[in-house]
Amino acid sequence: MLIEEIGETGKKLHTGRSRNEQVVTDEKLYLKTKIPQLIERLKRIQTSVVKLAEDYFDVIMPAYTHLQQGQCVLFSHYIMSLFWPLQRGKERLADLLKRIDKLPLGAGALAGTTLPVDREYLSEQLGFGSITENSMDSVADRSFILETLFVLSIILLDLGRYAEDFIIFSSQEFGYILLANTISTSSSLMPQKRNPDFFELVRASSGELFGNLTQLFVVLKGLPLTYNKDLQEDKVPLHHGVENTLRVLEVFEQVVGKIKLNKKQIENQIDPSLFATDMIDYLVEKGVPFREAHGIVGAIVYHAEREGKRLNELKLEELKKFSYLFDEKVSELFDPVHSVNQKKTTGSTNPEKVKIQIEKAKKLI
Amino acid sequence: MLIEEIGETGKKLHTGRSRNEQVVTDEKLYLKTKIPQLIERLKRIQTSVVKLAEDYFDVIMPAYTHLQQGQCVLFSHYIMSLFWPLQRGKERLADLLKRIDKLPLGAGALAGTTLPVDREYLSEQLGFGSITENSMDSVADRSFILETLFVLSIILLDLGRYAEDFIIFSSQEFGYILLANTISTSSSLMPQKRNPDFFELVRASSGELFGNLTQLFVVLKGLPLTYNKDLQEDKVPLHHGVENTLRVLEVFEQVVGKIKLNKKQIENQIDPSLFATDMIDYLVEKGVPFREAHGIVGAIVYHAEREGKRLNELKLEELKKFSYLFDEKVSELFDPVHSVNQKKTTGSTNPEKVKIQIEKAKKLI
Amino acid sequence: MLIEEIGETGKKLHTGRSRNEQVVTDEKLYLKTKIPQLIERLKRIQTSVVKLAEDYFDVIMPAYTHLQQGQCVLFSHYIMSLFWPLQRGKERLADLLKRIDKLPLGAGALAGTTLPVDREYLSEQLGFGSITENSMDSVADRSFILETLFVLSIILLDLGRYAEDFIIFSSQEFGYILLANTISTSSSLMPQKRNPDFFELVRASSGELFGNLTQLFVVLKGLPLTYNKDLQEDKVPLHHGVENTLRVLEVFEQVVGKIKLNKKQIENQIDPSLFATDMIDYLVEKGVPFREAHGIVGAIVYHAEREGKRLNELKLEELKKFSYLFDEKVSELFDPVHSVNQKKTTGSTNPEKVKIQIEKAKKLI
Amino acid sequence: MLIEEIGETGKKLHTGRSRNEQVVTDEKLYLKTKIPQLIERLKRIQTSVVKLAEDYFDVIMPAYTHLQQGQCVLFSHYIMSLFWPLQRGKERLADLLKRIDKLPLGAGALAGTTLPVDREYLSEQLGFGSITENSMDSVADRSFILETLFVLSIILLDLGRYAEDFIIFSSQEFGYILLANTISTSSSLMPQKRNPDFFELVRASSGELFGNLTQLFVVLKGLPLTYNKDLQEDKVPLHHGVENTLRVLEVFEQVVGKIKLNKKQIENQIDPSLFATDMIDYLVEKGVPFREAHGIVGAIVYHAEREGKRLNELKLEELKKFSYLFDEKVSELFDPVHSVNQKKTTGSTNPEKVKIQIEKAKKLI
Repeated sequence: MLIEEIGETGKKLHTGRSRNEQVVTDEKLYLKTKIPQLIERLKRIQTSVVKLAEDYFDVIMPAYTHLQQGQCVLFSHYIMSLFWPLQRGKERLADLLKRIDKLPLGAGALAGTTLPVDREYLSEQLGFGSITENSMDSVADRSFILETLFVLSIILLDLGRYAEDFIIFSSQEFGYILLANTISTSSSLMPQKRNPDFFELVRASSGELFGNLTQLFVVLKGLPLTYNKDLQEDKVPLHHGVENTLRVLEVFEQVVGKIKLNKKQIENQIDPSLFATDMIDYLVEKGVPFREAHGIVGAIVYHAEREGKRLNELKLEELKKFSYLFDEKVSELFDPVHSVNQKKTTGSTNPEKVKIQIEKAKKLI
Repeated sequence: MLIEEIGETGKKLHTGRSRNEQVVTDEKLYLKTKIPQLIERLKRIQTSVVKLAEDYFDVIMPAYTHLQQGQCVLFSHYIMSLFWPLQRGKERLADLLKRIDKLPLGAGALAGTTLPVDREYLSEQLGFGSITENSMDSVADRSFILETLFVLSIILLDLGRYAEDFIIFSSQEFGYILLANTISTSSSLMPQKRNPDFFELVRASSGELFGNLTQLFVVLKGLPLTYNKDLQEDKVPLHHGVENTLRVLEVFEQVVGKIKLNKKQIENQIDPSLFATDMIDYLVEKGVPFREAHGIVGAIVYHAEREGKRLNELKLEELKKFSYLFDEKVSELFDPVHSVNQKKTTGSTNPEKVKIQIEKAKKLI
Repeated sequence: MLIEEIGETGKKLHTGRSRNEQVVTDEKLYLKTKIPQLIERLKRIQTSVVKLAEDYFDVIMPAYTHLQQGQCVLFSHYIMSLFWPLQRGKERLADLLKRIDKLPLGAGALAGTTLPVDREYLSEQLGFGSITENSMDSVADRSFILETLFVLSIILLDLGRYAEDFIIFSSQEFGYILLANTISTSSSLMPQKRNPDFFELVRASSGELFGNLTQLFVVLKGLPLTYNKDLQEDKVPLHHGVENTLRVLEVFEQVVGKIKLNKKQIENQIDPSLFATDMIDYLVEKGVPFREAHGIVGAIVYHAEREGKRLNELKLEELKKFSYLFDEKVSELFDPVHSVNQKKTTGSTNPEKVKIQIEKAKKLI
Repeated sequence: MLIEEIGETGKKLHTGRSRNEQVVTDEKLYLKTKIPQLIERLKRIQTSVVKLAEDYFDVIMPAYTHLQQGQCVLFSHYIMSLFWPLQRGKERLADLLKRIDKLPLGAGALAGTTLPVDREYLSEQLGFGSITENSMDSVADRSFILETLFVLSIILLDLGRYAEDFIIFSSQEFGYILLANTISTSSSLMPQKRNPDFFELVRASSGELFGNLTQLFVVLKGLPLTYNKDLQEDKVPLHHGVENTLRVLEVFEQVVGKIKLNKKQIENQIDPSLFATDMIDYLVEKGVPFREAHGIVGAIVYHAEREGKRLNELKLEELKKFSYLFDEKVSELFDPVHSVNQKKTTGSTNPEKVKIQIEKAKKLI
């Protein structure tokens, strides 16, 4: 591969070269090509994410902790939460690229070469930023491959968590996402099925990458210096890992862009008990200490449950029994729009803050 | 912990705060304290390494590929090959610190808070560089812990390969390293034993870190957004991983500094066949194409073996049968000093180049 | 520990014993105590499972592939599907116990001992089935610990998949499981929350075990024979792994026994499209080849969807347009009881078959 | 594959079958073919091991703990220590086969089938021992694949430890094993090199298997019941894992059979300090308590070292200063043959016991 890359110079280079230095040079050249492609794919997913955030800016949905409805958020805020792991993925790849950008050629078998090779010049010719500092380290080090596999594992792990969400959101019981034929498959036995296969494959994909990482870690563990034949086992996990990630990123970009929300269903699913924290905030604003307010609202929730009523079905008189501070404005609390507007902090789901977040994100693509 | 850290401000902060945001803030504060300590420990090992390189600058040893003697190198060059993985460890920690340096506080349970908290101000007060951009991502993300455990795994994996070397070098058969009582232990049954326990524990230590990493990766895989109780399982691997690494780095620093070389034994162990590449270089310099020279020397090695002679015991006449280019200067080839001096490239084992390498390293500590 | 176990005999044994043989003997004695406890805990969970299967024998629920409703099953059938992984867990533990049941004592440091110890007699005294065959293998082998950690990993992985189901079933959107206060926790910020913490901890628990397994695997990889200090690193993962599993099994048993189903909600959630396979079976029974029937029903499903009707809302005339074989009996198809009764095979969800399954299970506890 | 296997019956079976049940049936059929092949390969390696043990029955070598010489053993005893891990490998495969030997066919998509299939009869026809008990478990379970990958990982881990030994024994410094051209490779740059590539590849091979295991474990973690597309990701690790193991076992069998020992070198390398435990045994036999004897010999070892003498170079008078119990018979202690003969226990390196061990082993092949 090296020789193809640099033609005649490559052929001359071969004279007296060791496979030890060439193998690692090839791997670095490979990654110097592939990492920019990976970053590009991440950017495209970020673009799809921002588009979704803008397209569905009016949708308010329940957000979850413990897979229980916690608080209302803009769908835009939810989907933008995926933008930042992708951004970290790009940063990790860029950091990694710095470490890859050192040419090992000239290290010989392990001790350096007797030919008066100008390694700095060679490095420039081959597009490297600098040269490795120690010939033995040059042929023995594979930590840049481990780091590659790790960074890709994290990217797929992050995507996998959203894939899990989308699969749950596509169930009949949730019904938030409409699975178009283009992003689902049918069943050999059950013709009614619309299976979120693509999201399932994304969810599964971090397993292969982390398996590749584990493989290479086990191989490297306890190896004496410098080159050992064991190191040959780095090629398959590296190439499989990189190519597979590129493929998964492409699939994810395509299917995420085709997500259609069932707005009506999302609205219907919002459980009024979701607004319990808004009730607490209401009391706190009127001067009730937080812990006390938490206790009061807890008692109200319990009361409603016992009465078989939803939280928004309780009459003002009933609420007043728990605190005289409740007045007719309490009914506003059960409005999702009011709930998200009440949030104040930078980075919160307040629509103004989400707009700022989206603008910031656009600059980073 | 947060409250101890920031006193009265901490207490006020508690009002209406969610455990979700606090837990992750605590973890980031913990790492902002620990990572500089880890970097400091790595620097100390680098200092020990440089000292060894200077103390034993005159020692020439066989260097290995496949655990077979390959070429002669300065011991200084060999031990300096450990400096650069440590340097990469420091760089990876510094890169990681950037990603940790974003305050999540103000994210609330997941949606942001209704209190008009100035997160930028808070971030400054708590010594963070900036704030997280999305409240849901803030409470759901644990990738900085994965990255911590990964970076520490790599550091210990690298140290473990040198530990393996030192264990092999301490065997009676190699005999390169004299195990002083201070860096070895005895046996309950075999009083003659000097066991390299400390190096064995260093060799084993990457297992625990990679186990911690695997644990957290498995825990995170497929988790829906945002916070789930499963995330509580990140604390033990994080704390064990960090504290254990600090301990191993301390042990390694102490024992590596006490390594004593058995110079005489190292010299005796150098196998003359090691100079076969020097013979090739000799012929190449006289105009023989590399592949041809490799063939000639291969034939000579085979001949010597069949005759039961070591390579340096062959007479000039014998050599001349393989190539008329050999002359009396050939005897110089079997001199380790000549061999290392012949290397020309930056980063090679040539003593002048090793000195430059050491100077460069000193500036980085 | 050994000495406590066998008193005076233990003290005498100490004479001239090596730590190498004692450490591994202690680990085997420990597991010979713990494995029966683990099996006992699995049995108790099996008992809870069978009780649930009997208590809710009348409940029919949707069963899922790809988290999409696939076909109707008895809840009893669903929950009994957990019985068999537990049974395999018990079998794996029993198989493992055979391999542990060989006494290593008498192996000395590695070569055997000069004392005329009758190892067979000792083995009998200590409750072992037989003795190890080779003294070097005796002190070097740790594969029984790897196997322990693996078997426990699988058990927790299997439980974790059901924990995932229970978490999903506890969401407001599914609503199948009522989370009693005894098996859920509240939130520091959101008083309405009932979080399925215990099931989340079960879901997470396989991470720790697999992390323990990975740790020991990495430690053992590439270790030369026989004993090395690295082997000391087996104790923490072994003890943590076993004790943690015992704890998780206890938690799981307690919470699974307290599951309450919301029968009405389960019934309501059944999507009529679930009966599409019953429609196919109906046509096949009337002589239509399977592939053709699959095509017809697929077309009907698509038609219903376009018309905005549920499958059971289609009129007979509409159906007849797709196949003249439909008659008034078609309405029976949309009855869950009819659907499960139609299944014929051993091991199916047919109520008679489920009863047989339960009886078989009871004999195995 | 299934259809090829069972011809016409297979075609009929297809009617109305789900891919869910077929995929898992295919995997079980595949393993029912491959596991006996794996066991056969293990047997062949066992045969090679026994042959080596018999061919070199007269060779006594140092055995190691901490890679330090510990005690003398027969080479036969050493190599027989490899027989028993292979035996455990066979046992684990046989145990696993029991769990694979249950036919899932008839489970349908998940609920069973409406066709009156006689699963018991089908099981007999397809060569299975029995049928699975629950249709949902049948299509969801992949633990038999995890167990396969685990068992193969352990086998390769065990072989890898011996490969590590052989690599160390092949170094110039040890020189125990002569690397014939048939089991070593040369270098592109260093013509003198004889690299133990095959043993290095065996040492590395457990990495791939454990990587495969990790991949599938991560994929399965947290998956809801029953079938999910993620499960498709089990095929590559299963097939790669099995085929790769078969290949490694074949390579190992071929190279281990070609090992040639350098008897003279092994004899020369025995360090007299190795006999320190024999000195202790000598004193214990004369009535000195073990701890006291250990102290005396420790002092003697220290004295010899300070005097620059080897243990067998100390005069009787010198020894008597440490204990009056030493007499002229002490010189026998430094005889390797005497040392191994002194061992008494079953499973020890005593030549009579090793012969018994070999006979027992032969019966197990």
